[in-house]
Amino acid sequence: MTEKRSGIVTLTTDFGLRDPYVAAMKGVILSIFPRALLVDVTHQVPPGDIREAADTLARAALLYPPGTVHTAVVDPGVGGDRRALAAKADGHVFVGPDNGVLWPAIRNAPDLRVVHLENDAFFRKPVSRTFHGRDVFAPVAAHLAAGTPLDALGNGISDPIRLEAEGPERSTDGLVGAITRVDRFGNLITNIRAGDLDSVARVRNPVIRAGDIRVRGVRSCYEEVPRNEPLAIIGSDGFLELSVNRGRASDRMGLKGEGIVGAKVRIGFEA
Amino acid sequence: MTEKRSGIVTLTTDFGLRDPYVAAMKGVILSIFPRALLVDVTHQVPPGDIREAADTLARAALLYPPGTVHTAVVDPGVGGDRRALAAKADGHVFVGPDNGVLWPAIRNAPDLRVVHLENDAFFRKPVSRTFHGRDVFAPVAAHLAAGTPLDALGNGISDPIRLEAEGPERSTDGLVGAITRVDRFGNLITNIRAGDLDSVARVRNPVIRAGDIRVRGVRSCYEEVPRNEPLAIIGSDGFLELSVNRGRASDRMGLKGEGIVGAKVRIGFEA
Amino acid sequence: MTEKRSGIVTLTTDFGLRDPYVAAMKGVILSIFPRALLVDVTHQVPPGDIREAADTLARAALLYPPGTVHTAVVDPGVGGDRRALAAKADGHVFVGPDNGVLWPAIRNAPDLRVVHLENDAFFRKPVSRTFHGRDVFAPVAAHLAAGTPLDALGNGISDPIRLEAEGPERSTDGLVGAITRVDRFGNLITNIRAGDLDSVARVRNPVIRAGDIRVRGVRSCYEEVPRNEPLAIIGSDGFLELSVNRGRASDRMGLKGEGIVGAKVRIGFEA
Repeated sequence: MTEKRSGIVTLTTDFGLRDPYVAAMKGVILSIFPRALLVDVTHQVPPGDIREAADTLARAALLYPPGTVHTAVVDPGVGGDRRALAAKADGHVFVGPDNGVLWPAIRNAPDLRVVHLENDAFFRKPVSRTFHGRDVFAPVAAHLAAGTPLDALGNGISDPIRLEAEGPERSTDGLVGAITRVDRFGNLITNIRAGDLDSVARVRNPVIRAGDIRVRGVRSCYEEVPRNEPLAIIGSDGFLELSVNRGRASDRMGLKGEGIVGAKVRIGFEA
Repeated sequence: MTEKRSGIVTLTTDFGLRDPYVAAMKGVILSIFPRALLVDVTHQVPPGDIREAADTLARAALLYPPGTVHTAVVDPGVGGDRRALAAKADGHVFVGPDNGVLWPAIRNAPDLRVVHLENDAFFRKPVSRTFHGRDVFAPVAAHLAAGTPLDALGNGISDPIRLEAEGPERSTDGLVGAITRVDRFGNLITNIRAGDLDSVARVRNPVIRAGDIRVRGVRSCYEEVPRNEPLAIIGSDGFLELSVNRGRASDRMGLKGEGIVGAKVRIGFEA
Repeated sequence: MTEKRSGIVTLTTDFGLRDPYVAAMKGVILSIFPRALLVDVTHQVPPGDIREAADTLARAALLYPPGTVHTAVVDPGVGGDRRALAAKADGHVFVGPDNGVLWPAIRNAPDLRVVHLENDAFFRKPVSRTFHGRDVFAPVAAHLAAGTPLDALGNGISDPIRLEAEGPERSTDGLVGAITRVDRFGNLITNIRAGDLDSVARVRNPVIRAGDIRVRGVRSCYEEVPRNEPLAIIGSDGFLELSVNRGRASDRMGLKGEGIVGAKVRIGFEA
């Protein structure tokens, strides 16, 4: 019943890189499992933003080798009654609070198994009420990376919190989706998949609108339009994105930063 | 006379992550000791802020396995006459300038031994007058991680610069402490330990005030108060903290960012 | 025909640390070559700033052990017709787009050999048109670190894009150079090498001017001038820098941030 092991432990948190919190987690992991290969997915999740952390983890996790232990700690309910979880999914292992942060990464796994972390023999003692990253999730991740089987940590559960992403909706003349993320380049990532487009609008050279941006058709690379012109493209994870060749689409929306995530993206056909 | 070795080398600097300085140190370390396991504690210390670096290192260091080499380079006096140090403390090894940055991490060690780095055989040549991180501290850390004994590096000293943290003081009706740190979540970390509170005020359900924040009693988790309400709690390192459940205590002080660190925290009892 | 290998793979990008892009590259590398030792040079290059990325990489790369694979992905032309390259230089290996980002690091190597990455057997499939970091450069870097010879990747070329840095020019009474970089400490790094100074002006105790800063002579350490006083010094990479002892030279220029890089530095002699 041994798991396949890579020794890799990834970390996804909202702790930032100035405070000692990430370093504390790494010290705990290396004290338990000195051969751990630690990889930072990100520590720049906005404080408490479970949805962004879940999205980031889901986009990166399965690119790692099977047996990798992915640790996600965005945990505004720490110390309260939310459960702590570990999961096996797609041959990978996941550890984090039961608030949905793991869900997008594990939801489609045919082999999904989730346990409630109840066996405190694998925790660091005493367990702080404010920092389960250090006292619960880091030691459990280290033990899992070192070969402890999932079932040693607690009982299986079937009701983890499911953080479902909303998909686009059909409109009278196409689709209405939303912007889910603005990346460092000002690209606007939507919840519309290539497949959604195919079925509805791609062959008809649709008009795509979001805020003040209006483009026609889906391009296959940035350089297909002149510099500083907006375009729509299928991004590297398979979702429709709005970009500007050598520029920032987020500056063309006519909206301030906070209002862009969640803004509608309309795809339709016009005369 | 061999030291216990983990191969782990931690780095704590004010170099940030955009300039080539951290990467230069890592290259030097890996060129000397290719099996080094490098861990970033932080590189986001504000430039020249010895006190914050010392605090961050002290909170993280002893969570690593014995034999870890902790390298701290916040070094505004580089190139002048400040000494360079290595120390053994609690079975860990520490390297850095003699400006107090190591002191809080090593001050309580029963086995404390400090040497002045005088043997330039372990330095990178020529030694720059502006970047001892690359030319002195990185190579010395690598040699220590590879097994060079502390005493090969220079003579023992007994007068390293002691950067002592001020503790709280008794007032007529309780304690007066100070805020020492604001973390990424806006938590206000104080210099008041759980033990200080126990001896003075805890059983009397004290009033705790800092700036515009006023709370009664010490809670055991954030969720004990409604969302957006302030509370006092013993943080994960054993110090009293002021927090807001799902919010930012630093936004409730009525003070701008720079003025918060150092602000007084008063604990007393009222009618 | 095996290359010397360190297993080290360095990464230099403009991806930042909040998006999943760096984590995606690392997952791909570790899936191909699980023993890779990943080191971040920087991910904080301003988006699309090839010149800064090239400068950062050139300052750090050769401090690593021979056989290190340096991966640089600042790639505003991704998906268009720019070539992808790998190079061997000074016993190190380099991977990146053909836009000049590798050039300063490899230009002086006596053993320079550059190949065009044409063999898509080493790419991740399908190759996205927007993220060659994940689909081209990461897998190629992993294969190179694992021992694949350079010549398996494509044919040699002799015309990589050469991103040459401008040097200083002689003026009637000295030299005119430029500021190439402002570091986290506000130091102003110039394109004037110690050797340029020696030949022209050093023995004459020259006046050095940049914006509102005016200093006389070149110092050998910051502490030679009083606190908060500006000075000129030869920095750790051998270039003239303008600094302020315990302060920020960039705040003394009388110019806003964006205007400082590129600003002229004049060295001459006055009565």
